[in-house]
Amino acid sequence: MVPCNPTRRTLLASALAPLAARLDGQSGPSRIERWGLFELTLRGPRDGNPFVDVHFSAEFRYQHRSIPIDGFYDGDGVYRIRFSPDIEGEWSYITRSSRPELDGKQGTLSCTAPSASNHGPVSVRNSWEFAYADGAPYLPFGTTCYAWTHQPDALQQQTIETLRQAPFNKMRMCIFPKWYEYNRDEPRLFPFPRTAAGINDYTRFIPEFFRNLETRIAQLRSLAIEADLILFHPYDHWGYALMPPDADERYLRYVVARLGAFRNVWWSVANEWDLVKGKQPSDWDRYFRILQESDPYSRLRSIHHSVVMYDHAKPWVTHLSVQGDEFSKTAEWRAVFRKPVIFDECKYEGNIPKRWGDISPQELTRRFWLGTASGAFVGHGETYLNPHDILWWSKGGLLHGQSPRRIAFLRAIMEAAPRGLAPVAGAYYSCIAKAGEYYLYYLDYHQPALADFNLPADAHFEADIIDPWEMTAVTAPGTYSGRFQLKLPGKPMLAVRFRKA
Amino acid sequence: MVPCNPTRRTLLASALAPLAARLDGQSGPSRIERWGLFELTLRGPRDGNPFVDVHFSAEFRYQHRSIPIDGFYDGDGVYRIRFSPDIEGEWSYITRSSRPELDGKQGTLSCTAPSASNHGPVSVRNSWEFAYADGAPYLPFGTTCYAWTHQPDALQQQTIETLRQAPFNKMRMCIFPKWYEYNRDEPRLFPFPRTAAGINDYTRFIPEFFRNLETRIAQLRSLAIEADLILFHPYDHWGYALMPPDADERYLRYVVARLGAFRNVWWSVANEWDLVKGKQPSDWDRYFRILQESDPYSRLRSIHHSVVMYDHAKPWVTHLSVQGDEFSKTAEWRAVFRKPVIFDECKYEGNIPKRWGDISPQELTRRFWLGTASGAFVGHGETYLNPHDILWWSKGGLLHGQSPRRIAFLRAIMEAAPRGLAPVAGAYYSCIAKAGEYYLYYLDYHQPALADFNLPADAHFEADIIDPWEMTAVTAPGTYSGRFQLKLPGKPMLAVRFRKA
Repeated sequence: MVPCNPTRRTLLASALAPLAARLDGQSGPSRIERWGLFELTLRGPRDGNPFVDVHFSAEFRYQHRSIPIDGFYDGDGVYRIRFSPDIEGEWSYITRSSRPELDGKQGTLSCTAPSASNHGPVSVRNSWEFAYADGAPYLPFGTTCYAWTHQPDALQQQTIETLRQAPFNKMRMCIFPKWYEYNRDEPRLFPFPRTAAGINDYTRFIPEFFRNLETRIAQLRSLAIEADLILFHPYDHWGYALMPPDADERYLRYVVARLGAFRNVWWSVANEWDLVKGKQPSDWDRYFRILQESDPYSRLRSIHHSVVMYDHAKPWVTHLSVQGDEFSKTAEWRAVFRKPVIFDECKYEGNIPKRWGDISPQELTRRFWLGTASGAFVGHGETYLNPHDILWWSKGGLLHGQSPRRIAFLRAIMEAAPRGLAPVAGAYYSCIAKAGEYYLYYLDYHQPALADFNLPADAHFEADIIDPWEMTAVTAPGTYSGRFQLKLPGKPMLAVRFRKA
Repeated sequence: MVPCNPTRRTLLASALAPLAARLDGQSGPSRIERWGLFELTLRGPRDGNPFVDVHFSAEFRYQHRSIPIDGFYDGDGVYRIRFSPDIEGEWSYITRSSRPELDGKQGTLSCTAPSASNHGPVSVRNSWEFAYADGAPYLPFGTTCYAWTHQPDALQQQTIETLRQAPFNKMRMCIFPKWYEYNRDEPRLFPFPRTAAGINDYTRFIPEFFRNLETRIAQLRSLAIEADLILFHPYDHWGYALMPPDADERYLRYVVARLGAFRNVWWSVANEWDLVKGKQPSDWDRYFRILQESDPYSRLRSIHHSVVMYDHAKPWVTHLSVQGDEFSKTAEWRAVFRKPVIFDECKYEGNIPKRWGDISPQELTRRFWLGTASGAFVGHGETYLNPHDILWWSKGGLLHGQSPRRIAFLRAIMEAAPRGLAPVAGAYYSCIAKAGEYYLYYLDYHQPALADFNLPADAHFEADIIDPWEMTAVTAPGTYSGRFQLKLPGKPMLAVRFRKA
């Protein structure tokens, strides 16, 4: 075990501290908190092309359990293995490599209790909901900054500062840079070496590109934001959307080895898979299978479409990542796929001359409520014209819109709700409920002055009249039971919540 | 020719004057304006059941043209024939009857030029548009008062007074009374004699019921409002929805004979045909065929549905009378059926505890614009809670809502537009246009600060930014041509109109 180059490590350490253990040759066992990130760094060969020539992995053991973990080459003769232990106690490891200097290295790590803000990774619980590994509920209220990690450092940092005040706990973001309207800047860093003539060497990675990405993922983690990493997308002019199959696979395995140990990583196999010309449906299946095989943590896996929905019944899809506003299909999708449904893209609040990027804050707020009351989760994006073309939806920066405050209000309401909410079939207005306990109706453009409800007759409920735009919730006098009519303000776009008294 | 009972005639005369000619035994030819209503009144047998026993018709002749017209029995030994001539000049007639006292009566009428407000009946022109017989365009901006003619006289009169100030030029209304929520009053008049035990005699009609209806149709005509008469509907508790087939046919033929000569009559075969339990699809076909056979004027014919759309490809359907808000299907329906599309029911402005009757005025205004910009016509209704259960949508009375003013604004815009507008396939926002001349976009919930347009490069267009809710239209500076971006206020729910400069 050889200490790695301290200069390089500084950047990473600042990103990963305090949760990544550094092995600087100390003799005792490393201490790492549960779901934290343990990193083993070794020096090894620099000759040839270590990215493809050297096989390097480790076996992590806890009692009789053994977990194989792939390592990765980080350039300059530095090899790393990252591991996120999921159980407290004493772990040991031993490395395996095709090169003797990296083979058979052993060590131990002591996995301690997680710190207060560490709830572990998110996974699917109870078919339609997510939860952290410690059992804490996780309700995705995501946003989208596709290319924020490809912007100048100061802008990336501004994005983080904005997120610190924002209501979002998931970020949709591309690993590859993006080439699209409002996105015509060449990034400072590329994932692969590239000649001046634009020829990529897909057999090598540029570690600095990935180090920056990891810094940002770690910052998101510190803000309790899940990083929904988009692995492929069509908005490319460098070649990444159409790499040879072996390059695709090497890329996926490298990404999993480098990033998979971050507990806040999700895999979004594509943004708009059906718009990537030249790939076959079987290619997308193959990417999922590579993730399944290579990811020891089974991080969440989804695939996002433009027009043609991928077959979400396939077993490697953990949840639906939908584009559109067909919230009324949520109940059917929940029933058919038995997976959580996230409308990750339902158009963006903004004013650009694009109908996907010019909806009003009222309309986006409405969509969040409509989706939520349909039993789905909804994602945010923002596209206001900017003199420097810094639009949140791609580059991050500042938020200018009026919907985030309302999304925060909705998030607080939903986090205060019981778990196990399900859409109520045949409800008169969109409704999710936990039978006998909690009912949340969203009335959309309806404005009844009196509304009929039918709650269980054997319980009493308090009624709150919620104004999603004004962000008020007013408790109506009395309690309610069975069939009754509730007086309402006769104003559209309200919600009504009933909670067992 | 025998003068009819003057007492009875007074009511009718007041309704039909000045357009109906009265034949009081005068010797010279009657004068009747084109598309007016000529009425021939004869005294005949009262014995037996004249409604079924006596056949009575006339042949109206203009040069070599001959039009058979059915008469009807109006009670008390009075028989009438109504005729609306469609060409100016000298007409003659001769009656035919199974009874000698009604047979072979001859006379003449002189058809004169129509008065200024008389544009003739409405029919379909140019596949997707309506026009009056004199060529004047007719753009339906209808409303709905299903049961207004079954209300007390004062309320019926109030409805007429309200309509005088309202923007509507079509009224959806039931011939039969209605039994439904907010409609649990027994009408003063029934169409058929009825025993205290509720047994109807479908072989006889109650003329007074129909005289009231005709009074109201004539009043609508004087307000330039088309009477879209609903012949059958499911909201019945008297038996009219499930009469025997021979009663259905007798009813239809009686209605056509009595009402068909009013130039503002349209036939709506059903409100929500698919909710009438006990009728077969073939029954509805048969009703259409009876109308086709018996109506010498071929008044407009439609059928309105709840969930299951009738096959509008059938040749007897003149236009689509749609329930719903699938405005985006308009282009397809226009292409498939090649008939005008009216969204006669797209939910009502109101606040009752029904989701079909509680939409906001903003939403109904939006629907009018969205439907219009999709190439359809849209209908109004209003359902505000009322201490006396007088809801406009069924009983008429007063309008309380905020959408009618906005509908008037839209109507003025559309009446100022050229004819031949068609939905623009693939337009970025909903758009109807007359290519090279006129373009009307509705931006719905979009709020672009800049919007891209692509107009013909060989012409210059003025741009008006229209706010449908504020009812303003502001002309942007300059003219526009080819591809360009237009600055907009960055506010949702606006429209943009381009007119050739």
